[in-house]
Amino acid sequence: MSNVRGNDTLAKVVALCKRRGFVFQSSEIYDGINGFWDYGPYGVTLRRSVEQLWWKHMVEDRDNVVGLDSTIICNPRVWKASGHLDQFSDLMTDCLDCRRRFRVDQMEDPGTCPECGSKQMTEPREFNLMMKTFVGPVFDEEHAAYLRAETCQPIFVDFDQVRIASRQKLPFGIAQTGKAFRNEINPRFFTFRSREFVQMEMEFFCRADEAMAWYDYWKAERWSFYRDLLRFPEETLKIHEHEKLAHYAQAALDIEYAFPFGWGEIEGIHHRGTWDMGRHGEFSGRDLSYFDQEHNERFLPTVVETSCGLDRICLALLCRGYREDMAATQKEGRDEDVRVLLSLPPLVSPVQVAVLPLVKKLGETAAGLFRDLRRRWRTEYDEGGSIGKRYRRQDEIGTPFCVTVDYESLEDRAVTVRHRDSMTQDRVGMDALVGYLAERLV
Amino acid sequence: MSNVRGNDTLAKVVALCKRRGFVFQSSEIYDGINGFWDYGPYGVTLRRSVEQLWWKHMVEDRDNVVGLDSTIICNPRVWKASGHLDQFSDLMTDCLDCRRRFRVDQMEDPGTCPECGSKQMTEPREFNLMMKTFVGPVFDEEHAAYLRAETCQPIFVDFDQVRIASRQKLPFGIAQTGKAFRNEINPRFFTFRSREFVQMEMEFFCRADEAMAWYDYWKAERWSFYRDLLRFPEETLKIHEHEKLAHYAQAALDIEYAFPFGWGEIEGIHHRGTWDMGRHGEFSGRDLSYFDQEHNERFLPTVVETSCGLDRICLALLCRGYREDMAATQKEGRDEDVRVLLSLPPLVSPVQVAVLPLVKKLGETAAGLFRDLRRRWRTEYDEGGSIGKRYRRQDEIGTPFCVTVDYESLEDRAVTVRHRDSMTQDRVGMDALVGYLAERLV
Repeated sequence: MSNVRGNDTLAKVVALCKRRGFVFQSSEIYDGINGFWDYGPYGVTLRRSVEQLWWKHMVEDRDNVVGLDSTIICNPRVWKASGHLDQFSDLMTDCLDCRRRFRVDQMEDPGTCPECGSKQMTEPREFNLMMKTFVGPVFDEEHAAYLRAETCQPIFVDFDQVRIASRQKLPFGIAQTGKAFRNEINPRFFTFRSREFVQMEMEFFCRADEAMAWYDYWKAERWSFYRDLLRFPEETLKIHEHEKLAHYAQAALDIEYAFPFGWGEIEGIHHRGTWDMGRHGEFSGRDLSYFDQEHNERFLPTVVETSCGLDRICLALLCRGYREDMAATQKEGRDEDVRVLLSLPPLVSPVQVAVLPLVKKLGETAAGLFRDLRRRWRTEYDEGGSIGKRYRRQDEIGTPFCVTVDYESLEDRAVTVRHRDSMTQDRVGMDALVGYLAERLV
Repeated sequence: MSNVRGNDTLAKVVALCKRRGFVFQSSEIYDGINGFWDYGPYGVTLRRSVEQLWWKHMVEDRDNVVGLDSTIICNPRVWKASGHLDQFSDLMTDCLDCRRRFRVDQMEDPGTCPECGSKQMTEPREFNLMMKTFVGPVFDEEHAAYLRAETCQPIFVDFDQVRIASRQKLPFGIAQTGKAFRNEINPRFFTFRSREFVQMEMEFFCRADEAMAWYDYWKAERWSFYRDLLRFPEETLKIHEHEKLAHYAQAALDIEYAFPFGWGEIEGIHHRGTWDMGRHGEFSGRDLSYFDQEHNERFLPTVVETSCGLDRICLALLCRGYREDMAATQKEGRDEDVRVLLSLPPLVSPVQVAVLPLVKKLGETAAGLFRDLRRRWRTEYDEGGSIGKRYRRQDEIGTPFCVTVDYESLEDRAVTVRHRDSMTQDRVGMDALVGYLAERLV
């Protein structure tokens, strides 16, 4: 089986996503809008499954992490305190002749317009990446507000409310998933760098002297999430330890995935110290310190953060899963073209089982099986077209198991289970089918 | 048991929501931001559960409805075509003396300032309720974009992409849940009218001559969702048929709930005709018509919409569930104050089972039970404080069942199951506990 890896893999993934309705351009009939992507039926299911897996792993299965869902728009002073209003920006310059705007760090010669060659460029100035809006009846600076650039700041802001209501003691975490917005100058690499995206963040509050131990703990937990739950082979992941630290960080690393366009960050783990809690305490005038009864001490909590991009994880799954396969196709007696398959982990595959009657007159038996299986798994029923075409379609949407009902099934009460990746087939009694699938759909 | 119904119920619900971390003001440490509410640990779980219930009922359990997740920001021409840019507005007037702005339909005398009494009021003008932002490197009208005012428009816009990729034929539906934004002049009634909220919408595409039958079908389905799944008593719900129809509607009704502040819409069901598809076809220049092979006809699909507000449903559940109960409290030997309880349906209660060891030394047995139960249900373990106080807390967060491990449990391998609403207690063998709860947690 040949794995397609290289420059054109991303283009093939983009084409598959559009063809099968995973992800496509937002407002496509209006020529789209740069940096915004919609998730179609299979894409929504994939994304919901990954999000739910994260939520279960990070919140539901733990006693020391609780959930939050804050608004996208919050009081603008949050972004003053966080530093985003002053520092979350790119240096830009305008051409006075053609009136275009450019990022200085992407220009070969900042004094020359890359578009028209003019030397009439303005002094570089900061262009803030936060999207601005207005709340209330007047559109002036007093009513300006911002779409959150990250989901973590409201967690710091709500820390005391959540801590008191949930009766948590340090160490404990607060997690949330939700949309964030950045007015990226150059959105690119499909959903990798877009302007609207879903973050999944967890802020873990602890004592300063325990923070490095928690940092290591969460590094191991998050690595395991990708390796053991999402089944990424270890060689497709790497840890990138930051040498140069952001102003808020005392230690930081990225988990990167080997995208077709190079290594790209899918998660950041940051020891943020007391920076955020200190800033919000200072700017709000509230005492955000914590009294540790055990040690009889009052201090600002130290924060260890795990922050990942749901869209990037889905893109990594799609890129990782995309394969083209010629030899195996010929095995099934079709040699006119390559087999495209999406090898997604069964836990997050949009369709986990497909039920396919060989011919329509077997539909009654097949429909009975379908009704039974769909109560347990995401199941699709398809009776249209040749069985080969139907297999091909399920391969493309990443269905790990196809259950085929044939003429013999009426005699032997058994069905054929075809495995997506290996194309091997097992004959399984209908009574044993649920058990057979349950063992493998994990 | 006395049901608290009246003017102060909402205030009590708001207080409970803050105290127990269900819902509280966004950015509270910065004095909040009017019309924005954050969901804390129990609130998130309630909201996620209701959303998942809707998604299962509307998408996963049906073969003829598929999911979508479109971006909040889309091409602004979508809102030109939908009519929102031109018509989604309130009439406002400004006072030239005190410089305040007012909604004309809420003023007793539109010519007089309600604030300072001045007669120097501007001519009334339209104030658009959509929140505006800018996408790209320049903040001018060419780069203006809007936060979606409703989740349904992108469904119409993506109709063809979704239809082709999912191989659906009419009649079928497309559903999505997600944030919408309206710059309401007067947010009020807690989360009932806020500026950022979650919609759950389904657009059902069909032939014109079948639309009224589908309208009736969805009316029945959605009524059943509230009555049978969310367990609202029928007398707390009513159907309000619209006599005056919006420009896009051929028939419309609201499902209303008896909130403490009066009847309020929680869902709208609309026969939208071909209005939306016609407008988007016209404005995009694309042919959005559908070819019906069975009837050999080409036509614009007619749309029947079901549209509800997730925050409003949660608020209805909280208001419906809130009770104060004096007599029952005395039954448990506590007479110093009333018992507050939140009678939520077990399916969506943030905590479904609480495991409470009578004293800490019974913790080992209790913790074993807890580990077993949490694999099946949302389960909380609490060993702090008197058993009465722990019951009281679980009552307030709406936990339907408390499982108490006492000294006798070590002998008889049985536990006490206490019912939230009736306060009755059953002795149940530990081996039979999962079965006992499974029957009741539906």
